[in-house]
Amino acid sequence: MSRFEVIAEMRKKLTLAELAKVAGGTVRGPATLPIGGVNTVIDAREDEITWVRGDEFRKKLETSRAGAVVVSPSFGATPMPAVLCEDPELGFLRILERFAPPIPRPPVGIDPAARVAENVTLGGAVAIGPHVVIGERAEIGDRTVLHAGVFVGPDTTVGADCELWAGVVVRERCRLGNRVIIHPNAVIGADGFGYHFTEGRHQKIPQIGSVRIEDDVEIGANSCIDRAKFGVTVIGQGTKIDNLVQVAHNVQIGTHCVLAGQVGLSGSVRLGRYVVLGGQAGVADHIGLGDGVRVAATSLVMRSFPAGKTIGGSPAKEHRDWLREEVQLRRLPEWVAALKDLTRRIERLERAADNQQTS
Amino acid sequence: MSRFEVIAEMRKKLTLAELAKVAGGTVRGPATLPIGGVNTVIDAREDEITWVRGDEFRKKLETSRAGAVVVSPSFGATPMPAVLCEDPELGFLRILERFAPPIPRPPVGIDPAARVAENVTLGGAVAIGPHVVIGERAEIGDRTVLHAGVFVGPDTTVGADCELWAGVVVRERCRLGNRVIIHPNAVIGADGFGYHFTEGRHQKIPQIGSVRIEDDVEIGANSCIDRAKFGVTVIGQGTKIDNLVQVAHNVQIGTHCVLAGQVGLSGSVRLGRYVVLGGQAGVADHIGLGDGVRVAATSLVMRSFPAGKTIGGSPAKEHRDWLREEVQLRRLPEWVAALKDLTRRIERLERAADNQQTS
Amino acid sequence: MSRFEVIAEMRKKLTLAELAKVAGGTVRGPATLPIGGVNTVIDAREDEITWVRGDEFRKKLETSRAGAVVVSPSFGATPMPAVLCEDPELGFLRILERFAPPIPRPPVGIDPAARVAENVTLGGAVAIGPHVVIGERAEIGDRTVLHAGVFVGPDTTVGADCELWAGVVVRERCRLGNRVIIHPNAVIGADGFGYHFTEGRHQKIPQIGSVRIEDDVEIGANSCIDRAKFGVTVIGQGTKIDNLVQVAHNVQIGTHCVLAGQVGLSGSVRLGRYVVLGGQAGVADHIGLGDGVRVAATSLVMRSFPAGKTIGGSPAKEHRDWLREEVQLRRLPEWVAALKDLTRRIERLERAADNQQTS
Repeated sequence: MSRFEVIAEMRKKLTLAELAKVAGGTVRGPATLPIGGVNTVIDAREDEITWVRGDEFRKKLETSRAGAVVVSPSFGATPMPAVLCEDPELGFLRILERFAPPIPRPPVGIDPAARVAENVTLGGAVAIGPHVVIGERAEIGDRTVLHAGVFVGPDTTVGADCELWAGVVVRERCRLGNRVIIHPNAVIGADGFGYHFTEGRHQKIPQIGSVRIEDDVEIGANSCIDRAKFGVTVIGQGTKIDNLVQVAHNVQIGTHCVLAGQVGLSGSVRLGRYVVLGGQAGVADHIGLGDGVRVAATSLVMRSFPAGKTIGGSPAKEHRDWLREEVQLRRLPEWVAALKDLTRRIERLERAADNQQTS
Repeated sequence: MSRFEVIAEMRKKLTLAELAKVAGGTVRGPATLPIGGVNTVIDAREDEITWVRGDEFRKKLETSRAGAVVVSPSFGATPMPAVLCEDPELGFLRILERFAPPIPRPPVGIDPAARVAENVTLGGAVAIGPHVVIGERAEIGDRTVLHAGVFVGPDTTVGADCELWAGVVVRERCRLGNRVIIHPNAVIGADGFGYHFTEGRHQKIPQIGSVRIEDDVEIGANSCIDRAKFGVTVIGQGTKIDNLVQVAHNVQIGTHCVLAGQVGLSGSVRLGRYVVLGGQAGVADHIGLGDGVRVAATSLVMRSFPAGKTIGGSPAKEHRDWLREEVQLRRLPEWVAALKDLTRRIERLERAADNQQTS
Repeated sequence: MSRFEVIAEMRKKLTLAELAKVAGGTVRGPATLPIGGVNTVIDAREDEITWVRGDEFRKKLETSRAGAVVVSPSFGATPMPAVLCEDPELGFLRILERFAPPIPRPPVGIDPAARVAENVTLGGAVAIGPHVVIGERAEIGDRTVLHAGVFVGPDTTVGADCELWAGVVVRERCRLGNRVIIHPNAVIGADGFGYHFTEGRHQKIPQIGSVRIEDDVEIGANSCIDRAKFGVTVIGQGTKIDNLVQVAHNVQIGTHCVLAGQVGLSGSVRLGRYVVLGGQAGVADHIGLGDGVRVAATSLVMRSFPAGKTIGGSPAKEHRDWLREEVQLRRLPEWVAALKDLTRRIERLERAADNQQTS
């Protein structure tokens, strides 16, 4: 397919009625209106559809050139034809998927420039790109894609429908579930950072454990998940990890957590389910965070918190304490002024008292 | 060329007069003095040239063994021969370039162990190293160098005179300008980190946009520039990005910005021109920073700032407010002492008043 | 060897007496008790050995299913047989090593899919994996292992008994000592981040120096050690660096330092011996830290500190000042209340004084 054809395919238009069906919504306006793509309220062109939620973008919608918009039925009138959905974000997401260009992958089969050990077990319809290396006794599940240059170590198993992007390294004896996505140059199963200090030197503690990554996990580019000292480092089902994140040895992450970019978890940290960490947040070793704990960006968590808490700051404290501290810090100049004023008034009172005594 | 010859070439000497010409300056001392390299004031040997600016290193120059020094004409006497330049740093930089050993690159042509799709468009004098992979319909401009193991995805275009170091991954449909340098294992165009939370799970939002990197951009080792959800993540002309930096989806960086090591920009951040971020600084999603804003290292920027501001702290505030807060924090013990003193004085006054009433 | 055999080998059992010998300790209980592995107090099974130190885990030991435990002779009675060691951690470490499964490596020799320049010098028993690239005049020492896809640039020397994991990039003219371990996708010798701002543009300063990594250094996955502008970036003997760490150009790290995950050292930072930096800590450019300085996690060090100091905070200060500041911050609400109380009392005194004057 030529470059031109690919772009033509990407710009193949659908009618507004077809998009409403994709989005699970209803049409308001001309059902046959042709739409060729998606875009933001600001950037959308006449043949593109956009979406807005609530009032924030109502004004921008007035001046938008978008050909159509996805809104909730309660949004009211729109300057252009609309697709009405109860959850406009989800509806728009489905339209987005419909317009998504196909993700380029190596063809099914083993590239002649890949190195696959003889006793590897491959599922059906596996796609293995050039310069991939798969070690002894590894297993790769059905329909899994290994892009160029991926390294899968001996005795590692990768489930079905996984996608490991170019340059990903998964060392020996790790276990990946189904539908796991790992972005380029991420490293799974490198040695944990452990030493015994003796005779003036840091003596390496062998890191003989492994890593288990459960179903539906996604791990960002250049992130690192270290293998356990012994036992297993675990990333729970459905957890999503952004780029450049550090997960140290023996960490246990529950299901459906979210770790934003550059987060760092020290050794043996335990996260419950649905824990959310903002960008660059850090957690000290052996700390536990209960289900649903939310950590503000760049916080440093130095003690454990029970389920449901929202925390922030360095060291992290409960959100309302942290906010109060912030407010008090901002009001510090006021209080310093008040203190100076009090000092002057006391001096005046003291002088008066002295005068009285001496009079 | 043998190892010996390479080092001999690197140490080929130039006369002071030749160096003055290279630096755009004038000689003070013996024009024929042979100089074989550059070094710091402290480490320079007799056959090396160094540079100093202002008074900071005047004392160290007294004891330096350097054979020559680059200074401004207004610097005054020097203990060794000198090259006088109005901008001594720039003059020294030009001498440094003259002594720089050649950067080793794969030879012009396609390495037999590279995998280049048949319909790729290659410019003249392109150098493609071993284990490089170039996908369908990609374009590589004149004189561009792809070191070993680089991955360029389908429909991506790389301009002229670019250098992509070993292990760099650029995914499909990205666009790199001319003279772009990308350091080893950096990742361009990985999926943005976007999910729709529904039915207790984080559902992946397809990231169908791309990345545009303009002319003269440099991106550090292991840094990540994510592709847009839709539309384009943009790195403006002349912007320089250090190692381990995270640039999330839909970020727009203006021209000539500087991002130091480990900086993190969240989704849809917009930077103007000439914005400078210190190491490990973070910017929350959708924040805008105007032209020339300077952000102190490790700051967390949680609101937008107009052009020209210098900001710092977590959350970041204007520099003078941040400094004042720092000073007040440091003076807190003083104020606590003052408060205690006032308390004692009030107690005394109260006792006196009581005595008076009862007397 | 089949998967089954490997696991059988890993689970081969040793008697408690054999383990005591390995650990340099003595047996308390049945000398012939078979033990097949190591684990934590909580997770250990009946055929596994664990260890405890001090009282922290005494209670958990009561309910542990572990077949045996390593403790110090002074620990007292244990619910299961024991190996008694003066340093139980070290004893356990030796048992751990005994049970460690062999690390999978490419076989000795040069993989046919590797690209080794003709004039490279290889030591004895070197193991070079598939898709490795070694540039002109490089030297690789005895028994060194280069895993799949490693890149070693021209004129770089790697010592004996080193291990470079998959995807590691070491650029030209760097020098690695003996027993150096570098984890996957780390980058050694990329250009330092240096520009000269002139005519509205950042002009690249050539980075013509190199990197020297001394004996027994370990560098984590996706970490970056930049080459010097000129001269050498140095990582001293026995220093251990965790994942995602940034070491900028011209940094000088002494011997036996420890840098935890995501630490960032700016240009020309100098660390003495035995310096320890907690996770995500940052050090500003040209700062020096003396022997044995310890920096708390996420601190930002903005001035130099002499040997022996423990520091923390942003900006970092001595630990006791930082703690005091933290305490005072936490007590701020109290002082604000005290200030308000004083204000009321002064108002009362002032009213009394007024009454007296007018009476």
